[in-house]
Amino acid sequence: MGDSPRESFGGGEVSSLVEQAKELQEAAASLISRTSREEDALRQRAASLDSRINSLRSSKHDDTLEDELVRARYVLSEGDAAAYLPSKSHGRFLRMFLGPINVRANRKDVQLKVKEEYNNFRDRTSYLFLFFPSLLLVLRSWMWEGCLPALPVQLYQAWLLYLYTGLALRENILRVNGSDIRPWWIKHHYCAMAMALISLTWEIERGPGCAQKQCRVIKGKIVMQRGVELFLRWAIMQGVAMILQNRYQRQRLYTRIALGKARRMDVVWGETAGVEGQLLLLCPILFVLQGFEAYVGVLLLKTALSGFSPDWQVITCGTLFIIMAVGNFANTVQTLATKSKVKAKIRKGKSRQELNSGSEGKSL
Amino acid sequence: MGDSPRESFGGGEVSSLVEQAKELQEAAASLISRTSREEDALRQRAASLDSRINSLRSSKHDDTLEDELVRARYVLSEGDAAAYLPSKSHGRFLRMFLGPINVRANRKDVQLKVKEEYNNFRDRTSYLFLFFPSLLLVLRSWMWEGCLPALPVQLYQAWLLYLYTGLALRENILRVNGSDIRPWWIKHHYCAMAMALISLTWEIERGPGCAQKQCRVIKGKIVMQRGVELFLRWAIMQGVAMILQNRYQRQRLYTRIALGKARRMDVVWGETAGVEGQLLLLCPILFVLQGFEAYVGVLLLKTALSGFSPDWQVITCGTLFIIMAVGNFANTVQTLATKSKVKAKIRKGKSRQELNSGSEGKSL
Repeated sequence: MGDSPRESFGGGEVSSLVEQAKELQEAAASLISRTSREEDALRQRAASLDSRINSLRSSKHDDTLEDELVRARYVLSEGDAAAYLPSKSHGRFLRMFLGPINVRANRKDVQLKVKEEYNNFRDRTSYLFLFFPSLLLVLRSWMWEGCLPALPVQLYQAWLLYLYTGLALRENILRVNGSDIRPWWIKHHYCAMAMALISLTWEIERGPGCAQKQCRVIKGKIVMQRGVELFLRWAIMQGVAMILQNRYQRQRLYTRIALGKARRMDVVWGETAGVEGQLLLLCPILFVLQGFEAYVGVLLLKTALSGFSPDWQVITCGTLFIIMAVGNFANTVQTLATKSKVKAKIRKGKSRQELNSGSEGKSL
Repeated sequence: MGDSPRESFGGGEVSSLVEQAKELQEAAASLISRTSREEDALRQRAASLDSRINSLRSSKHDDTLEDELVRARYVLSEGDAAAYLPSKSHGRFLRMFLGPINVRANRKDVQLKVKEEYNNFRDRTSYLFLFFPSLLLVLRSWMWEGCLPALPVQLYQAWLLYLYTGLALRENILRVNGSDIRPWWIKHHYCAMAMALISLTWEIERGPGCAQKQCRVIKGKIVMQRGVELFLRWAIMQGVAMILQNRYQRQRLYTRIALGKARRMDVVWGETAGVEGQLLLLCPILFVLQGFEAYVGVLLLKTALSGFSPDWQVITCGTLFIIMAVGNFANTVQTLATKSKVKAKIRKGKSRQELNSGSEGKSL
């Protein structure tokens, strides 16, 4: 590399460094311009193919053609070509916090790693999600004589605010990287962020009457103590549900990664295999959780409207709880409906494949 | 492209789509593997060049060689080659909020755009930073009879929390993209985030005595009212300083972009040109601001220690104010010292250049 005859810090070596830096700069500039030209070409091809697949799929035709279209879409979206598909916009939330920086990974394996790390984050935090409220409730009856002091609750609420912000940011990043996450789950985390922020401004100080297990001093504070207690109970249930949900989604992802590696593009719908037993356990828990969420919301609204506690925080949090419960319920039902539709399709597809076995590779 | 004889949604067109998708997939895979191989090679060259420049610079030698080394470093770090220099680690803060996603732009012009957008963000928010506390103080004397109600102040504090989180995230992203931002300014924003979060838990409710301009009901609340008022006054000053600082830094960036475009690698230190007048205005304002910051901190600590208000929030916020004031002062002084050293160097360099004019292109 260059002509550096080692004059021990002489000008020769130094000016050869300048030359080498210039060469490197030119190599970098040419690589960048060449790559971006080729990438643009691939992006155009991917966009036109994508729109043709979409327009053909929207028109009616028989199942064999439909299968082929699904296969084409799968090849396009599950391999390296996915990086060149038209990308979803980054969205207001990411722009608000990060500015217009690009968070899209340009390789499919990196995108899957991002999703895996998201699952790890959910895993780690779901145990804390279960642990913190349990600890607060245990300390409340053992040490704090039935009354929650402000500071530990506020620390917990600050942690919740961080957690929901982190989840919302990560989910937006996943969406940009081609995840099909339902928009509601992200909105749900915006609601939870708002609630954590509002709950930080609640006054739940331990009143002087609190030590006598009566909390009669200021009526608002009893409501707060009761509200926080309900919230903590709900959070424990939510923690259990999160842990189960994580297990379920992690297995789905591993199946997908295995499929992607094996390049078996024909097993499109196989991702639900082997986890149906878990779904049977998860569903009732989720529905009970959503019912409890709505109950907490109604209870908060009732106390607010009965004039006990005129704080705007109670009304807003109650409303948010009810919105989140209804939205979660609707989305869980929709997800289940989609899953059963897909399952029916697989069954239909299988029986058809058994009928005209052999012609599978290139039907028509 | 393929053989699609338009059989109106026939199998021919569909299976040609599958073929095209497979071709595209292969093209994408080959481009990605080729590019990443070439990028690795460039990265190795850049790293070895970088370490050789660093080791030569750390050893003593005369000014001409030093100039050449600076020039080599400039070629390496201001052009497209910068994308292949060893990157700074993403840091705990970014990993906490975003996970291990890559936020480094791989082109120098994109990196500069990120910095420009950061400046725009600071610009937009600095006017709000001036506006919100002014509005609160005006309404306080016009409408609220000398007492700040909780909700508007809390909305303002929530906005501050968002603002500082956004700034800290963006500054960490800038650092990853090769900005030489001083670590202190990022830490300063962590402190400000903590303070905004803590101040959300303050109780500054309008007591019943507040309307009579006496605020005698609960002693803690007087302190809070006074503390918030001081904070708002400080925020107005800070807003003015931010607007001036932004003007100054924006002009520096434009100079750099112009230099980068012109590829005049020899004007390394030119970036301070033409903005020295503004620095003369900015410095005294910054020092007064830091003095006021320390004053607010001491005042908060004094009230806390005199037993008026035993709230931990007052002690923590007072301490944070003092830490921020001291850190800001030390870093402003260091920045000024660096600037004057650089200026001395330019002057020396210029007189040397005038002496041996002509030999500028390749000295030795």
